[in-house]
Amino acid sequence: MKNYVNLFPFWSNLTDAEKDLIKNAVYTEKYNKGMLMHRTEDSCKGLMTILTGQLRTYILSEEGREVTLFRVNAEEVCVLSASCLMDTITFDVLIEATEDTEVLVLPSATLNQVMQQNSHVELFLYKSATEKFSDVMWTMQQILFLKIDQRVAQFLWDEMIQKNTMTLSITHDEIAKLIGSAREVVTKVLKYMVKENTLELKRGTIIILDKEKLRSYL
Amino acid sequence: MKNYVNLFPFWSNLTDAEKDLIKNAVYTEKYNKGMLMHRTEDSCKGLMTILTGQLRTYILSEEGREVTLFRVNAEEVCVLSASCLMDTITFDVLIEATEDTEVLVLPSATLNQVMQQNSHVELFLYKSATEKFSDVMWTMQQILFLKIDQRVAQFLWDEMIQKNTMTLSITHDEIAKLIGSAREVVTKVLKYMVKENTLELKRGTIIILDKEKLRSYL
Repeated sequence: MKNYVNLFPFWSNLTDAEKDLIKNAVYTEKYNKGMLMHRTEDSCKGLMTILTGQLRTYILSEEGREVTLFRVNAEEVCVLSASCLMDTITFDVLIEATEDTEVLVLPSATLNQVMQQNSHVELFLYKSATEKFSDVMWTMQQILFLKIDQRVAQFLWDEMIQKNTMTLSITHDEIAKLIGSAREVVTKVLKYMVKENTLELKRGTIIILDKEKLRSYL
Repeated sequence: MKNYVNLFPFWSNLTDAEKDLIKNAVYTEKYNKGMLMHRTEDSCKGLMTILTGQLRTYILSEEGREVTLFRVNAEEVCVLSASCLMDTITFDVLIEATEDTEVLVLPSATLNQVMQQNSHVELFLYKSATEKFSDVMWTMQQILFLKIDQRVAQFLWDEMIQKNTMTLSITHDEIAKLIGSAREVVTKVLKYMVKENTLELKRGTIIILDKEKLRSYL
């Protein structure tokens, strides 16, 4: 198991008793790609630190439309899975694994106990939530103010950088969900980019042919 | 001047020296309806408690489209005007008075000094920011998932309840800005509601004729 200091930024502010409490309570859990955390436990499972993989936090309309708020990567903390401990959070989100993911869970009950004793822990939770507030504001600005072709191009660009490859294994539907659009719209934009020789499309794969051209859409 | 305990929820957790520091630093300021706080000082002015009136927090696209995030009413605290003190807030907002407004300002420099000494104050700031996160999530869901006629109806309904009157003094343009839509769209919806005998429109005024009908759009 990794170093606790890296996993919990408030570690150095804990007493030895609090450290032991946490060590005895944490456990690892695996989610397969596409697995949704049980809806009712989303808001109360506890603090999740991603060991490997990625989680996606999103909201769902009554008609089933999904809008991705942000993604949480390895070595980052998923704080909204402990939102029941924060009384100023009044909204619900869904959390899904976008790839095979392993997380370290610090259960809400233990987290709550430590948080009552140690204000550093409470402050950490609210600071992390505020960080997610910033992420959501960025997403909202993207959705409201960027044109759809820019959003698709920005998404492909970011994926290319993050995964360090010009060949992306992703479906049009997955892109649509991640950028908060519809599959048909994404397909239309991608086909336009194919015509422009920016991309090549294969089943479940997008190959970036011309990086500079892709950048020109941003 | 009002009771400090009501104005600053962390008041009871302060030392006498900290209380004196704040008492000597606070000042009141007046904004006329429509006045925008100076853009560069928005994020650093300090904590503002609304004494009378209302502030509106919004974002602006490059093309000048406005989207209202939330409004802050009398006896509530505007925390994003102190966002420079919170390093997890990485976005900027604009703040405008929607009516003649008087605020009590606790300047950032003093707030920062007290916050360094007293973790209750820091926690209060982040908790308040997280509360605004919840407001923004609500707004985002409205924008993404509610149809425009529902949003207009919901807005009129809320105004009617809040102001306790069936005669609302507001322009179509103001409604559009507040619900994140365009004036033309709002006018179209209002005219439809006039045809349905739900409303009557006069210059700068909307009269609600049929409460039950208005509710039926929600």
